[in-house]
Amino acid sequence: MTYCLAIKLNSGIVYCSDSRTNAGADQVSIYSKMYKWGIENKCQFVLLSAGNLATTQGVISQIGREIREKGSYSLLNFSYMDEAADYIGKLNVEERAKHAIEDGPNAGFDPSATFIFGGQILGEEQQLFIIYPQGNHISTSSIAPFLQIGETKYGKPILDRIIRPDTGIEAAVRCALVSMDSTMRSNATVGPPIELQIYTRDSLSEGLYRSFRTHDPYLQLLRKAWDEKVVEAFNEMPHLD
Amino acid sequence: MTYCLAIKLNSGIVYCSDSRTNAGADQVSIYSKMYKWGIENKCQFVLLSAGNLATTQGVISQIGREIREKGSYSLLNFSYMDEAADYIGKLNVEERAKHAIEDGPNAGFDPSATFIFGGQILGEEQQLFIIYPQGNHISTSSIAPFLQIGETKYGKPILDRIIRPDTGIEAAVRCALVSMDSTMRSNATVGPPIELQIYTRDSLSEGLYRSFRTHDPYLQLLRKAWDEKVVEAFNEMPHLD
Repeated sequence: MTYCLAIKLNSGIVYCSDSRTNAGADQVSIYSKMYKWGIENKCQFVLLSAGNLATTQGVISQIGREIREKGSYSLLNFSYMDEAADYIGKLNVEERAKHAIEDGPNAGFDPSATFIFGGQILGEEQQLFIIYPQGNHISTSSIAPFLQIGETKYGKPILDRIIRPDTGIEAAVRCALVSMDSTMRSNATVGPPIELQIYTRDSLSEGLYRSFRTHDPYLQLLRKAWDEKVVEAFNEMPHLD
Repeated sequence: MTYCLAIKLNSGIVYCSDSRTNAGADQVSIYSKMYKWGIENKCQFVLLSAGNLATTQGVISQIGREIREKGSYSLLNFSYMDEAADYIGKLNVEERAKHAIEDGPNAGFDPSATFIFGGQILGEEQQLFIIYPQGNHISTSSIAPFLQIGETKYGKPILDRIIRPDTGIEAAVRCALVSMDSTMRSNATVGPPIELQIYTRDSLSEGLYRSFRTHDPYLQLLRKAWDEKVVEAFNEMPHLD
């Protein structure tokens, strides 16, 4: 499995993804699930992926090909974020349909993928979407402005408690990492390196990127501190008679 | 959905279950998912259920009927806990098979149910199992001695952090309620009343029972305190540069 999340704040967008892929317990690999494209001062996009790796790679490779061919119909040429999301949705449906099996002994095989797609185009607001295997997409909620794909449940309670549109970038980054840590602790199919990308609203430039490996000192410090604080908080809960 | 959990401690067993059932969003009801049978000083059993409500009710009704018929083959007549678990597994498989549909327009309908089953029989150790739709069962882990069924993921991180075999009953009860609260907060298909049953090891008597309704003062206090403490703990996390 996978765990990716993105948070749309008044001040920008925080993206966070794990890097573990598995097809059964003995076929575990490390793949980045974070992809970026952009033109300085014109547009910036980030895509996070969950689901079938072949479909994901097909979509990514097609996006790259159409950019390199420099036609007018490519990710870097759209004027609106939801056009760009529609475009990725279309590629997702096409790639999935290529390999889905409807009949015969392997009927039911469905190599579907789901994406988080965010960014900003000059003259437009920053936006964030989930793009489904069916090609359609939804945007963030205005009250709890985060989106998750993959193993979303373990890490949702802390996001529900902390994230609001006016949360600062630094707090949102910490919250994303705590959410990721809780997920990794309780589910063996989500694992490091953890990739983090921060887009500053209206900057139209790529922004800060950081990758945290297993023994990254900050990630270890955060894990230890969070574990201690949660246990401490728990110990201070009112007792039941 | 449902969320039930049970914790096997050195000093006893804590059972906790929600009471919301739903078949679609407009067919939401309140049903207890906690069932108890026992004979003082001889045996004590608790069963928590998740899954198809008709199958669950079929299993419960059959257990009751065989007890009332006073034959030698009933839940209250086994000498070993795993015999009792096998018995419930068998009823579960039979009840499911009655209504499963393999052919025709509704093929694929599978009214499966999963149970947590625990208790103690005189002369035997207390034990705790998950009983699967296939009728087989597993016991608790010796390191993290809790079992969950239904919507298990939201509430797992806190159990992973707190529960050990030597955790006290009171702390385990608080942890079960925090785990339940995190789940209710993030998932609308889990809801009150929350039922709680505490069995004291080797007591062979039913033990303490309590039901918490939505506005139960302790549940509200716990919810508020936990929310504040988690946010406080989060705010004290080391910042990333």
